[in-house]
Amino acid sequence: MKIPYQSLRKFTKSVFLKIGCSPQDAEKATDVLLAADLRGIDSHGVARLSSYVRLWKSGRINSAPSISIVHETPSTAVIDGGAGLGLVVAPKAMAIAIEKAQQVGTGWVAVNNSNHYGIAGYHAMQALEHDMIGITMTNASPLVVPTFSKEKMLGTNPIAVAFPAGEQEPFIADLATTTAAYGKLEILQRKNSPAPIGWIQDDEGNPTQDCAAISDGGGLLPLGSDREHGSHKGYCLGAMVDIFSAVLSGANYGPWVPPYVPFLGKKEGFVGNGIGHFFGAMRIDAFRPKKEFKTHMDRWIECFRNAKPIDPEIKVQIPGDQEREYEKVRLIGGIPIVDSVLEDLKHLAEHFDIEPEWGSNMPSDASTLEI
Amino acid sequence: MKIPYQSLRKFTKSVFLKIGCSPQDAEKATDVLLAADLRGIDSHGVARLSSYVRLWKSGRINSAPSISIVHETPSTAVIDGGAGLGLVVAPKAMAIAIEKAQQVGTGWVAVNNSNHYGIAGYHAMQALEHDMIGITMTNASPLVVPTFSKEKMLGTNPIAVAFPAGEQEPFIADLATTTAAYGKLEILQRKNSPAPIGWIQDDEGNPTQDCAAISDGGGLLPLGSDREHGSHKGYCLGAMVDIFSAVLSGANYGPWVPPYVPFLGKKEGFVGNGIGHFFGAMRIDAFRPKKEFKTHMDRWIECFRNAKPIDPEIKVQIPGDQEREYEKVRLIGGIPIVDSVLEDLKHLAEHFDIEPEWGSNMPSDASTLEI
Repeated sequence: MKIPYQSLRKFTKSVFLKIGCSPQDAEKATDVLLAADLRGIDSHGVARLSSYVRLWKSGRINSAPSISIVHETPSTAVIDGGAGLGLVVAPKAMAIAIEKAQQVGTGWVAVNNSNHYGIAGYHAMQALEHDMIGITMTNASPLVVPTFSKEKMLGTNPIAVAFPAGEQEPFIADLATTTAAYGKLEILQRKNSPAPIGWIQDDEGNPTQDCAAISDGGGLLPLGSDREHGSHKGYCLGAMVDIFSAVLSGANYGPWVPPYVPFLGKKEGFVGNGIGHFFGAMRIDAFRPKKEFKTHMDRWIECFRNAKPIDPEIKVQIPGDQEREYEKVRLIGGIPIVDSVLEDLKHLAEHFDIEPEWGSNMPSDASTLEI
Repeated sequence: MKIPYQSLRKFTKSVFLKIGCSPQDAEKATDVLLAADLRGIDSHGVARLSSYVRLWKSGRINSAPSISIVHETPSTAVIDGGAGLGLVVAPKAMAIAIEKAQQVGTGWVAVNNSNHYGIAGYHAMQALEHDMIGITMTNASPLVVPTFSKEKMLGTNPIAVAFPAGEQEPFIADLATTTAAYGKLEILQRKNSPAPIGWIQDDEGNPTQDCAAISDGGGLLPLGSDREHGSHKGYCLGAMVDIFSAVLSGANYGPWVPPYVPFLGKKEGFVGNGIGHFFGAMRIDAFRPKKEFKTHMDRWIECFRNAKPIDPEIKVQIPGDQEREYEKVRLIGGIPIVDSVLEDLKHLAEHFDIEPEWGSNMPSDASTLEI
């Protein structure tokens, strides 16, 4: 089933309003969440709406948080997210980073006491319209094993960086520091398909193709898969994200990160508040004239796009290309929603007494568009 | 053969003095270069000394560079390295980043018109004694293929980050954004051993174990090895390093980076000056009190060190552990030098009429120490 973007947006906003978000916060949270659905990262969009509601019900998410600056210098700040939705806390933190970059060239904001913030790429992209480079990372539920370990210690801990370009579309990197994002594993699980060797290990630390191993004592592997192929580098990157996001901000780190996925137990105690994020904004003209930078970014992008392909049918991509393709198609054709997510949305509609409008104004060509 | 650290240091400094470095610059360049030998990254130490001399002879390295700030804001600067040794330019750039961090919390310096700067980790570590986080990256000779391409477009483009700790030793990450560093391939080549599948591809883009493929139209693979195992993420990380180091600074990027390895031809033209680096320093107390941060870093490190191992004999490591082990052994036992490097050093000694002192004061236990 495909739901028109605007209908899904309206519904999602209603849910955020029902749990007590201000109209402004509900609008922002919806914008962040739907950006994932639009850009083809289905695991991070409305598929998670019911989880946010679940966390709000259990008291872990405050829908009217008091977000405050704990400490700051001209180029840095630490923010207490007030246990708010990460979808709301993150845009505020990024706005502070951007403001600081306006003043002194760069701005860096570490956030504690927050929750899952949606797709990292969205937040990095906020810098682009200010002719800045945007950077963000976040820690997350411990699902990932360090190299040589059979204990889940890190989240998929993504890094996102957005660089503005001139005539070309911007370079937008957004990557989990694991071989495969958890969302990809969820998709395979739904299909009952095996995972490629190198994505996960079982409870004894052996390679496995069984997706269920992840909730049965196994773990996701860091980018690199095994020691011989550089998994210590993926572990290292995930660790860096954890330290920037949480040790620097005062959030929980490593195995203490409060889990988002229901099957994970919580390690006893806390070493900080909530989960942590990290944001950066760098003004291009704090380094070189904007026009010069953009001209060279265009040249960089063209040069890499035209790198000799192995298969003439498969061209080299620029980070962000694939998501832009999805966005183009889905803005017109609607957002594909799998049955289990549709069930979730129906339950939310009933629970909050919201009348979803999908079905009524589905564009006639929606079902013919595939990506 | 093992050469005592101090003898090798004295010899190396003599060579830098002979090519015209000031005593201060020769001392610094030696310190950076020998740090690689001490820390077990043999490919980046005195094994490269003759290459620096070669580049100096061909006019690409200026041993008495005029290093200048081209542009700055309170938290940023762009430095023209004056075609100097990267080993000399980089410490100066890092010092400026640290100075800016003292003033406004963080400092970020992009460098153009430089050359190979040794091990990235050395430069990041300079921040530690100031209770700062140190960050650096650099672009390098195009040896790496983007995902889906058979054209070498990127360097091994390392990222290094150093976090101070309290009682524990610091967390020092230093990683090439490829599956394996080029130095590891060189070691296999010397032994005539095959490379693991996933490190390199041949001139047609097929996986290969033949190390020689790298100089025969093939390329190093980005971290992740292939698309299914996340090579697009390694490509993305390498690309980010290239953009921070060169598009932001005004250096050459992508295939235009002037090659350091002799077998690579130079792509016609230039898109900037020399090669590029990027440096960052972040004052811990610009975020939270130093003591608090260090207490939590200690806890982070202890917790990860004690993560359940798969094999009880192989414990989880903290980035920097392995290099510290090498350093302990080599400071006492001397630096192992393979025959081809020893030949190189002998040639340099003859060429510059330097009397190397090794052999005379070799500690008697040197040959019994192995790592």
